[in-house]
Amino acid sequence: MAHLVRTGISLESDLLERFDCAIHKKGYKNRSEAIRDLVRDFVVTEDVEENRMVVGTLTMVYDHHRPKLSERLIEAQHHAEHKVLAATHVHLDHHNCLEVIIMRGRSADVRHLADRILSLRGVKHGKLVLTTPGKNL
Amino acid sequence: MAHLVRTGISLESDLLERFDCAIHKKGYKNRSEAIRDLVRDFVVTEDVEENRMVVGTLTMVYDHHRPKLSERLIEAQHHAEHKVLAATHVHLDHHNCLEVIIMRGRSADVRHLADRILSLRGVKHGKLVLTTPGKNL
Amino acid sequence: MAHLVRTGISLESDLLERFDCAIHKKGYKNRSEAIRDLVRDFVVTEDVEENRMVVGTLTMVYDHHRPKLSERLIEAQHHAEHKVLAATHVHLDHHNCLEVIIMRGRSADVRHLADRILSLRGVKHGKLVLTTPGKNL
Amino acid sequence: MAHLVRTGISLESDLLERFDCAIHKKGYKNRSEAIRDLVRDFVVTEDVEENRMVVGTLTMVYDHHRPKLSERLIEAQHHAEHKVLAATHVHLDHHNCLEVIIMRGRSADVRHLADRILSLRGVKHGKLVLTTPGKNL
Repeated sequence: MAHLVRTGISLESDLLERFDCAIHKKGYKNRSEAIRDLVRDFVVTEDVEENRMVVGTLTMVYDHHRPKLSERLIEAQHHAEHKVLAATHVHLDHHNCLEVIIMRGRSADVRHLADRILSLRGVKHGKLVLTTPGKNL
Repeated sequence: MAHLVRTGISLESDLLERFDCAIHKKGYKNRSEAIRDLVRDFVVTEDVEENRMVVGTLTMVYDHHRPKLSERLIEAQHHAEHKVLAATHVHLDHHNCLEVIIMRGRSADVRHLADRILSLRGVKHGKLVLTTPGKNL
Repeated sequence: MAHLVRTGISLESDLLERFDCAIHKKGYKNRSEAIRDLVRDFVVTEDVEENRMVVGTLTMVYDHHRPKLSERLIEAQHHAEHKVLAATHVHLDHHNCLEVIIMRGRSADVRHLADRILSLRGVKHGKLVLTTPGKNL
Repeated sequence: MAHLVRTGISLESDLLERFDCAIHKKGYKNRSEAIRDLVRDFVVTEDVEENRMVVGTLTMVYDHHRPKLSERLIEAQHHAEHKVLAATHVHLDHHNCLEVIIMRGRSADVRHLADRILSLRGVKHGKLVLTTPGKNL
């Protein structure tokens, strides 16, 4: 694991005061951790833009009574089996299920797979999150 | 379950042609399903803005060797137990874990819980998705 | 200009009711115009993803007392003169200016120019909007 | 104007290296300015969420041949005259205009005005940017 280094930034006292106040509301215990989170998010955004390896989680809500939908969802995932790491299923009510599919791959490939799944009939709503595999971060 | 109704829209032929082409690339089999997805997303966005009941999934990546982090994550979830439905854990490598926490509640409350968790030291990156419990959609 | 065509969609009565309610709040007079806006936004998003010709507006706030910043902003715009269509300047207070720079070009080029400008010292905050030149829409 | 203060952060050497590489691509000359931009963006996002005073720019594309649209746009702006600071108009082609309307007010009010305008028939596409009046930033 990487060793820690220290870097300094200069900024206006008013800005710093407002930042401290804003991060406190979000639950941060100290300024350094909040800035690290901003720095990491910047780097992850670049990974996504540059089509590097990312981890994606696709959240979707669907009606499991829709004929053949469950088969199609499983088929789509197995067809891309090297990309799908895991899936979690929650029963929301008699009709509605939430499923989270966890994927790994280049950002464009993960996005493409998510588009395929979200366009299936019976999938009511969904969103993809792209994040980092965590190395060097 | 609600019965189906039919509604008509008029739009420019050029626009319709471009739309058909764009949805085909995303994997849609027909125009009606693509428009339904846009309509549903509009309604879900309003649910979130109006602080209605939503389902949220928080994706986060963290280093499980960080002292006390696992305890803090479990504590934060149990403290809000009526909101957390399930959690899935994936081992990304020797150090890094991905966790997806599935929550239900008013959108502001779900967001607040997500902020608390993401601000913990050792959580490297994370994003919250807000979606629908699926009823009347 | 393209002639109008009519297309029909079928959707659940509950969903339609919720949609009508949500668009009414946003100010829409009728359902057809609201759906057209969703369809157009979908097509514009694809134009941006596929690096087609777009129009971009960069909003930024800066301190005009910052030495050399005005020159650098003008220089950056002239360097890309074929891309910059117009700029509007508003005096917010004694120190702060808002400037909106209107650009045209491929989406990646417009984004690159915006990044250059936003990274200049003295530019406090800014955001880029990518929209359509309007043809066939 | 506020005096400058200095603050230090500690972070992993690998992360710092990746950050330096990513900001260089965006055009940043030094790390301190890049971190200040992240800090400012965080503070502005909070201003928007907390319904504080913001500056908004609404970018929209419309067909100026659409009967009565120009009158309606002017009417909507004058009706909210204390909020609208300026407007810029660019002729994109024979039919299409781009207009940028610069507004100031509480974030919810600015958003409401933008929704009204974007829902008018003939407005093809548009997006709102919310930024800062610049003070204490």
